[in-house]
Amino acid sequence: MIIATIGSHSALQILHGAKKEGFQTMIITDNKREGFYKNFSFIDTVSAYTSLDEAVSMINEIKDNGILIPHGSLVEYLGKERVDRIETKIFGNRKIFEWEANQKKKMELLKKSNIKIPEIFERPEDVDRLVIVKLNGAKGGKGYFLAKNKSEVKEGIQKLIESKMIRDEDEVIIQEYIIGVPMYFQFFYSNIIDRTEIFGIDIRYETNIDGLRRLTYEYMKELNIDPTFVVVGNIPAVARESLLPVALEYANNFVRTTKELVSPGMIGPFCLESIVTDNSDIVVFEFSGRIVAGTNLYVNGSPYSWLYWDEPMSMGRRIAREIRVANEKDKLSLVVS
Amino acid sequence: MIIATIGSHSALQILHGAKKEGFQTMIITDNKREGFYKNFSFIDTVSAYTSLDEAVSMINEIKDNGILIPHGSLVEYLGKERVDRIETKIFGNRKIFEWEANQKKKMELLKKSNIKIPEIFERPEDVDRLVIVKLNGAKGGKGYFLAKNKSEVKEGIQKLIESKMIRDEDEVIIQEYIIGVPMYFQFFYSNIIDRTEIFGIDIRYETNIDGLRRLTYEYMKELNIDPTFVVVGNIPAVARESLLPVALEYANNFVRTTKELVSPGMIGPFCLESIVTDNSDIVVFEFSGRIVAGTNLYVNGSPYSWLYWDEPMSMGRRIAREIRVANEKDKLSLVVS
Amino acid sequence: MIIATIGSHSALQILHGAKKEGFQTMIITDNKREGFYKNFSFIDTVSAYTSLDEAVSMINEIKDNGILIPHGSLVEYLGKERVDRIETKIFGNRKIFEWEANQKKKMELLKKSNIKIPEIFERPEDVDRLVIVKLNGAKGGKGYFLAKNKSEVKEGIQKLIESKMIRDEDEVIIQEYIIGVPMYFQFFYSNIIDRTEIFGIDIRYETNIDGLRRLTYEYMKELNIDPTFVVVGNIPAVARESLLPVALEYANNFVRTTKELVSPGMIGPFCLESIVTDNSDIVVFEFSGRIVAGTNLYVNGSPYSWLYWDEPMSMGRRIAREIRVANEKDKLSLVVS
Repeated sequence: MIIATIGSHSALQILHGAKKEGFQTMIITDNKREGFYKNFSFIDTVSAYTSLDEAVSMINEIKDNGILIPHGSLVEYLGKERVDRIETKIFGNRKIFEWEANQKKKMELLKKSNIKIPEIFERPEDVDRLVIVKLNGAKGGKGYFLAKNKSEVKEGIQKLIESKMIRDEDEVIIQEYIIGVPMYFQFFYSNIIDRTEIFGIDIRYETNIDGLRRLTYEYMKELNIDPTFVVVGNIPAVARESLLPVALEYANNFVRTTKELVSPGMIGPFCLESIVTDNSDIVVFEFSGRIVAGTNLYVNGSPYSWLYWDEPMSMGRRIAREIRVANEKDKLSLVVS
Repeated sequence: MIIATIGSHSALQILHGAKKEGFQTMIITDNKREGFYKNFSFIDTVSAYTSLDEAVSMINEIKDNGILIPHGSLVEYLGKERVDRIETKIFGNRKIFEWEANQKKKMELLKKSNIKIPEIFERPEDVDRLVIVKLNGAKGGKGYFLAKNKSEVKEGIQKLIESKMIRDEDEVIIQEYIIGVPMYFQFFYSNIIDRTEIFGIDIRYETNIDGLRRLTYEYMKELNIDPTFVVVGNIPAVARESLLPVALEYANNFVRTTKELVSPGMIGPFCLESIVTDNSDIVVFEFSGRIVAGTNLYVNGSPYSWLYWDEPMSMGRRIAREIRVANEKDKLSLVVS
Repeated sequence: MIIATIGSHSALQILHGAKKEGFQTMIITDNKREGFYKNFSFIDTVSAYTSLDEAVSMINEIKDNGILIPHGSLVEYLGKERVDRIETKIFGNRKIFEWEANQKKKMELLKKSNIKIPEIFERPEDVDRLVIVKLNGAKGGKGYFLAKNKSEVKEGIQKLIESKMIRDEDEVIIQEYIIGVPMYFQFFYSNIIDRTEIFGIDIRYETNIDGLRRLTYEYMKELNIDPTFVVVGNIPAVARESLLPVALEYANNFVRTTKELVSPGMIGPFCLESIVTDNSDIVVFEFSGRIVAGTNLYVNGSPYSWLYWDEPMSMGRRIAREIRVANEKDKLSLVVS
């Protein structure tokens, strides 16, 4: 059996893990990155495409003996319409993609799971506190901005429209800005053994905001530098142990809700992107229904994965392990779609 | 033999390590977390309590064949009076608890060890520079505040009294605020082989202060947001190698002083919470006389533990190893109290 | 064969790795650190010197059967003249030292490698934007300062002269200050297998700047605290996978350029110290032509080294592996100078 993925995001750990679990591995990559991926001996086949349609064809070539592992760049690169044309089995539940792409449905899933979420403002006019304005889709924070009142919200949206990042205000979500620290809780739900595992925690490393601390306030002001929030990396962290039962309860609730609303529900990796407040509340402002790049930190296992496994377990390997076990039990259909 | 601990703080790595060293493991936990701890196969027994007195009874049930591993939440959860009723052997030196709980005795121990410490101000009136005001006990930074003169100190203490966090100013310690970066040096002292090991280094991840960098100064000002310092996690770090000899010398001095003043002295894990200044001075503003939560980062070993051990060594496992070796040499009484 | 290094910087991981590859190990250290290095069983010989000339003699004692591993503190401690007197083989290409010590030649190497670099200003008069002013040599950031116009540059240089850190303005380099986040990409080039490996990524932990985020702007202003940039540690990170092909291309270009200009070129570890902007550009503002202290994070392997090796591979061990393989192939002369 071949495990394949698109060359970006978390492809290295996905295929590294797949090889460790005994699979053939294949990367489907923009031909500009072909040379890069050829450096890694655990990748059996490097298929380089020159157009996105060719990428889809390449994926479909292994429809009889392959499984595609989706990650954050899949929909972003190929677009929804091309993803719909994928005939090869995809690990996890494809229907989650649609919920994930829509900020409103996303927050609804969280809310129905009894997870604390920030207040959402339908229209700029409703804003009565500090908010963050976000764009639909996993654009890595590009275009996000803060605003402390209606007029700042309107002004910011206007700028996004002028710079052609969005067409109108329906493409943004206006969320209460929670004061606290970001903590991204990564999980893996196995429907084969019906268990949600805490996989790891990361903090996003964002440019330029995480560099601006190095400038004094005067400089930022005089030089008129605006903070931006583009994710370019991740930093590892662990949480106070007393936060973990709450995080895991949230994760279990979330799995349950997806089973009801997006049958057969969440399968495999997901992430609850959270702010932890100084009341030790975990407030979840977003989720990812697939592997997140923050798991790239843990190629040899994370502080939490070592508690479950007596061997190095990356998220990529965890996925491959699930496929292998499902296959051995003749339950492969339960983990793909 | 059973190794037991209270369900919080660093319980997971403690019991994970104990299992690796061949012990039976037991967690004594608030019944709200019972389900959480049942996820982990290395925990043999989950004893759930509904009252703190019941917790003490549960601990005492294994007084003939168990050892309790203390951590930062033990005294905080049970309170001094209940801890005094524990009949089961406790790993390490119980007498350290008392010194740890008292900020003044704490600083005295450090000072007598020839360790650089910040200036301490007995009374708000004496304050002549930037200070940090702290509460007694390991409350995870809750209520701590900065002040740059006497009147700010008094004002802050008044607020703490009004919010019932303290009764009077004797419950705080007023420390010179050292300008530099925090670095928490974790050590393990083995009295069986008479060696102090550098275990690891962490940086605390504190809400909301570590999130405020994401807000511009104007926002913080207009929205009137005050920084808070509640520890909700930890981030790994290594130190410049030239700092390590100094840190280890401090640690060795500290062990020596505790042998004199708190006989039989420090046993097992401890931490020197420090600020490193731009003169590369290590200034220790606090110590912990037991395992700190920052070691949770290193469940599979730390950049330093790998220099001592050819196997994955968490702090939890190091403790269990010490107990096992002491027991094998018939010296168990040297490592418990 | 003996692998030796000077007792500082990354000596622990270098000798730990050398021992794992089967070498005899030797540390040459200031006698004040003798006791410290004796804690580690993988160090076979601790040679303590009382003068730097004695250090050179100690290094030269193993000229027939030893290899010295250079690191950032070698030239800094011994000075160029003493390094020139070293007769023992040095791992890597000695000629790189000279290019590394000179900020102008350094930037030239990068520029010729088609690597994006910040604008360099020859004279304070030319400055037309925010700049950072740096001192020659690897002084760990000591004395560096920011300036937003010519007069601030001149003023800052004047201060450095007054404090005797430099003699005149020729000893500084004035670089455009790139707005973004720091990311230090660590590589290893093997000329034995002609492959550049991504080893890891780190972020420097700098005092006091990384601590100042904990102070409000008012405090910094009223207390007149100036930011300083002294490196006292490192924090681990991973990069967005899409940045890696660019980083590796830069590294390969760099290796090629050094082969042309500093024959036989870069051998072994190096680092491209970079800022990642919010356009996801990698701008390299400095390189290190030898092991950097940021690799101390990865004593048991890094998120990237695990992709190349099925065993724990520190940078120290990677160096020793290269020496061992070169020696087995009778090509030792290719990796030392």
